[in-house]
Amino acid sequence: MTTDAPGRDWWLGFDIGGTRTKAGIVRGEGEVTNAHVEETGHEPFDVVWKRMLDYADEAIADQGAGGLKGVGIAAPGLVDPAFGVRLLPGKVPGIEDFPMRERLEERLGVPVRCLNDGAAATLAEWRFGAARGYEDVVGLTIGTGIGVGAIVGGRPLATRNLAGGVSFGHATIQTGGRTCLCGNIGCAETLVSANAVVGRMRDYVARKVPSTITEAYERDPGRITFKTLVEGVDAGDRVAQEIMQEFCRDLGATIVTAIHAYDPEVVVLAGGPMAQADYFVPQVQAYVDRYAFRYPRERIIPILRTERSDHAGVLGAVARVMQAVADAAPAS
Amino acid sequence: MTTDAPGRDWWLGFDIGGTRTKAGIVRGEGEVTNAHVEETGHEPFDVVWKRMLDYADEAIADQGAGGLKGVGIAAPGLVDPAFGVRLLPGKVPGIEDFPMRERLEERLGVPVRCLNDGAAATLAEWRFGAARGYEDVVGLTIGTGIGVGAIVGGRPLATRNLAGGVSFGHATIQTGGRTCLCGNIGCAETLVSANAVVGRMRDYVARKVPSTITEAYERDPGRITFKTLVEGVDAGDRVAQEIMQEFCRDLGATIVTAIHAYDPEVVVLAGGPMAQADYFVPQVQAYVDRYAFRYPRERIIPILRTERSDHAGVLGAVARVMQAVADAAPAS
Amino acid sequence: MTTDAPGRDWWLGFDIGGTRTKAGIVRGEGEVTNAHVEETGHEPFDVVWKRMLDYADEAIADQGAGGLKGVGIAAPGLVDPAFGVRLLPGKVPGIEDFPMRERLEERLGVPVRCLNDGAAATLAEWRFGAARGYEDVVGLTIGTGIGVGAIVGGRPLATRNLAGGVSFGHATIQTGGRTCLCGNIGCAETLVSANAVVGRMRDYVARKVPSTITEAYERDPGRITFKTLVEGVDAGDRVAQEIMQEFCRDLGATIVTAIHAYDPEVVVLAGGPMAQADYFVPQVQAYVDRYAFRYPRERIIPILRTERSDHAGVLGAVARVMQAVADAAPAS
Amino acid sequence: MTTDAPGRDWWLGFDIGGTRTKAGIVRGEGEVTNAHVEETGHEPFDVVWKRMLDYADEAIADQGAGGLKGVGIAAPGLVDPAFGVRLLPGKVPGIEDFPMRERLEERLGVPVRCLNDGAAATLAEWRFGAARGYEDVVGLTIGTGIGVGAIVGGRPLATRNLAGGVSFGHATIQTGGRTCLCGNIGCAETLVSANAVVGRMRDYVARKVPSTITEAYERDPGRITFKTLVEGVDAGDRVAQEIMQEFCRDLGATIVTAIHAYDPEVVVLAGGPMAQADYFVPQVQAYVDRYAFRYPRERIIPILRTERSDHAGVLGAVARVMQAVADAAPAS
Repeated sequence: MTTDAPGRDWWLGFDIGGTRTKAGIVRGEGEVTNAHVEETGHEPFDVVWKRMLDYADEAIADQGAGGLKGVGIAAPGLVDPAFGVRLLPGKVPGIEDFPMRERLEERLGVPVRCLNDGAAATLAEWRFGAARGYEDVVGLTIGTGIGVGAIVGGRPLATRNLAGGVSFGHATIQTGGRTCLCGNIGCAETLVSANAVVGRMRDYVARKVPSTITEAYERDPGRITFKTLVEGVDAGDRVAQEIMQEFCRDLGATIVTAIHAYDPEVVVLAGGPMAQADYFVPQVQAYVDRYAFRYPRERIIPILRTERSDHAGVLGAVARVMQAVADAAPAS
Repeated sequence: MTTDAPGRDWWLGFDIGGTRTKAGIVRGEGEVTNAHVEETGHEPFDVVWKRMLDYADEAIADQGAGGLKGVGIAAPGLVDPAFGVRLLPGKVPGIEDFPMRERLEERLGVPVRCLNDGAAATLAEWRFGAARGYEDVVGLTIGTGIGVGAIVGGRPLATRNLAGGVSFGHATIQTGGRTCLCGNIGCAETLVSANAVVGRMRDYVARKVPSTITEAYERDPGRITFKTLVEGVDAGDRVAQEIMQEFCRDLGATIVTAIHAYDPEVVVLAGGPMAQADYFVPQVQAYVDRYAFRYPRERIIPILRTERSDHAGVLGAVARVMQAVADAAPAS
Repeated sequence: MTTDAPGRDWWLGFDIGGTRTKAGIVRGEGEVTNAHVEETGHEPFDVVWKRMLDYADEAIADQGAGGLKGVGIAAPGLVDPAFGVRLLPGKVPGIEDFPMRERLEERLGVPVRCLNDGAAATLAEWRFGAARGYEDVVGLTIGTGIGVGAIVGGRPLATRNLAGGVSFGHATIQTGGRTCLCGNIGCAETLVSANAVVGRMRDYVARKVPSTITEAYERDPGRITFKTLVEGVDAGDRVAQEIMQEFCRDLGATIVTAIHAYDPEVVVLAGGPMAQADYFVPQVQAYVDRYAFRYPRERIIPILRTERSDHAGVLGAVARVMQAVADAAPAS
Repeated sequence: MTTDAPGRDWWLGFDIGGTRTKAGIVRGEGEVTNAHVEETGHEPFDVVWKRMLDYADEAIADQGAGGLKGVGIAAPGLVDPAFGVRLLPGKVPGIEDFPMRERLEERLGVPVRCLNDGAAATLAEWRFGAARGYEDVVGLTIGTGIGVGAIVGGRPLATRNLAGGVSFGHATIQTGGRTCLCGNIGCAETLVSANAVVGRMRDYVARKVPSTITEAYERDPGRITFKTLVEGVDAGDRVAQEIMQEFCRDLGATIVTAIHAYDPEVVVLAGGPMAQADYFVPQVQAYVDRYAFRYPRERIIPILRTERSDHAGVLGAVARVMQAVADAAPAS
């Protein structure tokens, strides 16, 4: 699927977030240059779009239009690859139903594709990172929510209603659990997102359970993060250990469910907590080794650590449009 | 995808089960003739295979070899479409690693494909039954376990390790729940299979909770089935109502999780309890309407009732080989 | 509180059960003689009563009326010490509202007292067995349900509505749990009675989870008891180990709750499973050591094993009437 | 038990808290005069004690020493009636093992008794408030924790180790639940204390679940209280309704457990959330009506609302010493 001549062909990738937009030029096996981050706060999308166009213009002026093979755009929410964002309540005013692909193809004359940012993170690992060479991959990004992407049979899962794989963070793993921001009960996201871990810590703090977490909160209420948990574990704090164990168990159950749903050869984890991966990945791997149903029984389903977290959205977006270009090429 | 001339072309389907094997001749849009059921008890597979060959010979003698377009075989366990059963512990001695497809293609000279029986049930509904015309479908068969099949983007989910979609009955929907026969904890199958419902009833009976279920057990311990539960609900029995509510909630959570994993347009239910579908499908639909994340919010994801339960395995197996034949045909 | 001259004074004790009635003559520090068991099946209470009178007559004929100091009667249900059984649905027809105490005092001319059989088992241990010398004691009998008795400040807990201590087996230890025969949800009795353990095992059997328990059931469906569980643990069976762990955890939580409710110095366990006490008492003690709130922290609250299980009801009933006699005596 | 001549006899009550100490003069059926509150912050106990003595001196100077019949002192932690506080980690430095009773009896020459403040709140209601005239009473104070007191057979539950009734807020009502500040798991206090409700709200806020609670937090993070919850319920907020329902269910389960442990005729609730009692007491009463085991079945066990919350500690402390004086009086 090599569609570029190294050194000459290049691709443009964008990663639109709630508060900032990233851009980069991608070549070959995933080299990113001219990486750019723009703080966009909660600006309306037409402002963001204008900056994206500026970036594209500069990149073309810099690299030469001839080598540009395509543009990929990652964004949160439900994303239509051949259109743009269909659903993204609140975060970026005006982004919904904006025909990104059409506008950009008209302007630049190259293929453009869009995709969900969780899906993009998985494609980045699959095409350029930790999961290279596999056909069946699930990627989870542990952030404010749980971003998910699934590669099945060598292709990103794609459905008419755009949510295939992308909504897996809302799989119910705890019947009778708590309500999620999506309205469902007991979602993985209510238990193993970074925010969920913070919520759990805040519950202990409110109940005044003696703990290094409570002490950290009393020093600075705004600084209760996953790192606070890890520091507690290091200090031998019982509450921190308990919360970490629950996190490992629940993340393990989430991954086992993903395995039973998608049958991946490998699972890739990304997101902020991965900076402290040694505190939970081994336990989660042990959980998966014990509980995941697979054949043969002794086969390990590795939980891989992100290798491309720096430019996950940009790279995944480019991987998506690369695939579209490859699909459109006549079979040789 | 019409690959047959009605009235002339025909297909052969087999459905191998733990204690009996079904066979049938399939034509056109799913007409089944010469349906045959063989009680095979726990016989070794070579005996079963011999009978399958006999059935094929008779069918060819009867219908004429010219019209036979292909053979499909459904079986429990992990099934390799281009080979046969790879993993099926205990149920049918000798079936594992038996090269069904190769043997039958050599003998009959037509394409042969194999698939998991839960996947087959879904294909039967998708190609010939309740889910005709959809691209994204999930089917669940509520039996001794939970059989599952997923159609994504107009194709059955297929993975290198053969379990894609098929193992979804082992999605964890209750962290900290009970151990499943697969070794995992809190699987959907531990809560919403027909056996799980019976297990729940037997727990109440053992604890001597006053109920029509306990009364039914005392009349005949062997006759505690899903029907016992329904009779209790009809009689206004509080315990039966409670167990039914839990079943609805847990089945609802299972379906919501399937929706969040596979993004189907419709979900099809099959299996023994569907004979009493009115007792739970409306409640489960209400649960899904309330809790499933989808776009637009007002879109209903219908829970359809099986239309092809009589020959689910045979029809699904034929649907699978039809697909293989269509894939192999040159694009016109 | 020595109210008897050894060798001369004696007491009569009865223990009325659902299917049999026990009787005995009690002396001194708990020696039981002339122990008698009568299978009463589901006979009406007037038949049972007649046999009790016969036993009393024979005992008096044998021992001499002069030394008889009092009669105690233990029975299931809500029992009024100065009257008889007030509530016992179904088990012994006619026992409710039968004025046992009045009838027997009139006939024999000595003090008579009645009490709940779970309370009796605790009094037996406290007055004559494992809990001698303590002021604050909780006793739990693990049987078809959970029998409970509480001694607080050196006296059996006694309330106007007769249920003080006696209903503790229906403490909710699992919100959102299963319905108990009492109508409440998540009672200790739904989790740690011998019947509850059997119910849990039957659930696994119905779900066909591979286990020595399932094998034992297939050999003989009627023989699934606590002993089956213990045999599975001995055989290293994973399911049996898991059920035993849950039993230990739930019994631990029940005892911790009893400690937090009644503040006993010691807890005494009785009932059928105590024949296999080594399989769970050490784990339960460890649970209590870890989780029970007490002062000072290093104080152990011992979980004692029954010493008077053979005649628990008879001895506890006698202990109750002994107390009444002591209370009535003028302070010297 | 009238031990005072109205208008002449008087009693002194103290209520020592973590950050302030209350005092008052009590007469007759609970009239409180000269009520005084002293903010004591986290001062060492000798400072607090000095102020208590000053208050006593002034009261005697004011009322005349002749009428003073006794002094009661309520305090948090484990309290020995005839001594003082035995265990109160951290809150009031130096209070542990301070012989309050001895010192004050020597100084004032009247009987002094101490008791736990949760027990005091219950005694206040039983002797002077909502639960007057009952023999069997349980009182729960919903505060930062759950204060509890139990009256059984017309007397406060009293045990050698001082925790009888007082620790009931640490009854496990949710096996597998979260760790409490006491170290136990799934305590009532982890679910239905005011702090626990706040912790639950903070979890939803951290997970960014859309809700009036999240909005209130964004306006002022420090102002998330039980009132925030009630305002959400009033506004029809789904998350607030859900949290309130869980609170009602868990408080219901706590009260049912208290009923099954202590068999009270009535239950009295006190504490901050009672200012919004209409939002939960009716639901909790319905829960108790449905699930509490009692005889006869139609008997209601009323959940009463505090009538003496203003001076609960002072009144309860006086009730305790009144009882001691009555006990010591020769029976007429």
